[in-house]
Amino acid sequence: MLSTDIVDTLFAIFEGIKFMLVEGKHYRTIWPNKALTGVTIIDQTYLPFEFKLMELVSLEQVLDAIKFMRVRGAPLIGITGAYGIAIALTKNPTDQSLMEAKKQLIKSRPTAVNLSWAVNLVVDQVKNEPEHNRASIAWIFASKLANEDIKNNQSIGEFGFELINKIKKSKINILTHCNAGWLATIDYGTALSPIYKAFKEGLDIHVWVDETRPRNQGMNLTAWELGQENIPHTIITDNAGGLLMQRGEVDLVIVGADRISIDGNVCNKIGTYLKALAAKTHNIPFYVAAPLSTLDSTYNGDNNLFDIECRDEDEILKVKGIDASNNLTEVKIGFSSAYNPAFDITPSKYVSKIICEKGIYNPSDIGKVLK
Amino acid sequence: MLSTDIVDTLFAIFEGIKFMLVEGKHYRTIWPNKALTGVTIIDQTYLPFEFKLMELVSLEQVLDAIKFMRVRGAPLIGITGAYGIAIALTKNPTDQSLMEAKKQLIKSRPTAVNLSWAVNLVVDQVKNEPEHNRASIAWIFASKLANEDIKNNQSIGEFGFELINKIKKSKINILTHCNAGWLATIDYGTALSPIYKAFKEGLDIHVWVDETRPRNQGMNLTAWELGQENIPHTIITDNAGGLLMQRGEVDLVIVGADRISIDGNVCNKIGTYLKALAAKTHNIPFYVAAPLSTLDSTYNGDNNLFDIECRDEDEILKVKGIDASNNLTEVKIGFSSAYNPAFDITPSKYVSKIICEKGIYNPSDIGKVLK
Repeated sequence: MLSTDIVDTLFAIFEGIKFMLVEGKHYRTIWPNKALTGVTIIDQTYLPFEFKLMELVSLEQVLDAIKFMRVRGAPLIGITGAYGIAIALTKNPTDQSLMEAKKQLIKSRPTAVNLSWAVNLVVDQVKNEPEHNRASIAWIFASKLANEDIKNNQSIGEFGFELINKIKKSKINILTHCNAGWLATIDYGTALSPIYKAFKEGLDIHVWVDETRPRNQGMNLTAWELGQENIPHTIITDNAGGLLMQRGEVDLVIVGADRISIDGNVCNKIGTYLKALAAKTHNIPFYVAAPLSTLDSTYNGDNNLFDIECRDEDEILKVKGIDASNNLTEVKIGFSSAYNPAFDITPSKYVSKIICEKGIYNPSDIGKVLK
Repeated sequence: MLSTDIVDTLFAIFEGIKFMLVEGKHYRTIWPNKALTGVTIIDQTYLPFEFKLMELVSLEQVLDAIKFMRVRGAPLIGITGAYGIAIALTKNPTDQSLMEAKKQLIKSRPTAVNLSWAVNLVVDQVKNEPEHNRASIAWIFASKLANEDIKNNQSIGEFGFELINKIKKSKINILTHCNAGWLATIDYGTALSPIYKAFKEGLDIHVWVDETRPRNQGMNLTAWELGQENIPHTIITDNAGGLLMQRGEVDLVIVGADRISIDGNVCNKIGTYLKALAAKTHNIPFYVAAPLSTLDSTYNGDNNLFDIECRDEDEILKVKGIDASNNLTEVKIGFSSAYNPAFDITPSKYVSKIICEKGIYNPSDIGKVLK
């Protein structure tokens, strides 16, 4: 059991931060419970059908939540990994427990670099500390990382807003792929943060939401988030963006990222690359919004060196929805085998700008920010 | 009732044609019933869940079958329209009945030009004939058009095979979008016809099947067709093609068309354009296979002059599949509004060749074939 002091310190660092809305109530995507024995998450596999919270009180539950995408989105996976170390150390603060937790967490999803970044940071904080201090240090450090994520996303929102505000049109159509909203982070989001800011500032915006097969994070999460904040939006299939761009109905594209090479190549949800090619063809700005923790200094953009997660074919062949009796039901829609790579790589030449917490960069210059 | 002679004449023209397989039995997609009172179709809205035949014996049933896509695919819609005239004239052979049937059929789906092409051809055949002869002429003429479709597709298969056979690789990966197989025609298909031929000729081919949201014609129809013929294939999301091309895992792309301008711009299922852009970027041949009836001599390729069908948002927001109790169930997957344009336009510069029944053409030369 951790001391009251530590618990107070921890919760004090959350004060004064206003989170995004769910039915009018403020939420973040993950938070420690009062006893510091675990965390509460929004189980995103139930959205938009049900808003369901879930408590994770063991390393195994954290690993399950990451693997089965109850939490997802590169920044949120990172923070969940950081809290995973805290949870593991709360149960067992030994070196062996720490190293095992680190190993298991980092391999739980291979593509988003933020996961290893956050886990390694927490491990570095605690590994030379006496065992009895480790858990509290990890809890506080993970919570500070969570707060930093929020601040970074607020900065991304400010910088990205400048880019949206440059579009001199009475109505601005923005296309986004997958979910890089507050659900993908601790709060505010990366790609959606500038959209929230633009809406708050009174710009007349409308968002084209790519449904984002196979897991439909656009239809399930982005549309839900935007709906909660009353931002005008329309779901489209992943196939439709090309036609909309041909017709001049997209003014800018903004997406998140799971990993960015130091030369500005962007690994993001499968299908991002096709939209980037179309945006380039039609001279539409294609922006990537991500915190610097998404940069991988060891990754030079070569496809073949890069580990693109391939997920279960059932993500393509089965779909969950609400049946006529109002029950959440899974149906099988495909009967051949399927191949399900989760990400693709958009070469830097198709990226107009990268927006991070430090500002707006040409993709080829993004590596310099780390120096 | 039509005379036995006419019925015999009609069925004689089907003889000697071998159709594609469904569980080892030969089928075409539409055929007249023995009494020449209607046609039988494969109701494609049930595939791949159930192989269900349906009889259409009134103009209203034909219109319903086209609108609700029980029959779909540009060439098949055309022939169904032709039989629709025969069915209408069988009930009522007056000028008024003929003109009403023509009008209703042509507007039942706006994009595929083959529909107005086939309907107008039948109307031209019968309009100056005495009323008592009209129905039999229409039945025979529609059936001849159906047979021509099969022969055209066999020719497309031969020509297209040459292009596949040029790929000097031990294993050839072909990507296709939507369904331009035998289910989209009377038999053999357009884009799939060269694939059937290549497989028959012993080439080691593998087909990447774009699922083709929102109606999943790739997952539902193309995968099913290829499975019935034991052709190796894998379903992918519409998002995945870009990554596969980046990785060199696509050797050629072949798709069908719903309308081709005389300067070689191709209107086809939504999402085709994104694949064409990616193929161009990676120097992968992008072939369009279609009969000449798909050419629209009045269409010059300008997007805004071109009627792209926008279908119901529920095609995006609801999905049909098999539930845990083995029942075909529809589930609602999206809860915001959706926009559902059914086609896009691939400019001719992204099309490597157009394959038609007359041969292989540069897209810019396709208009000359009509002269």
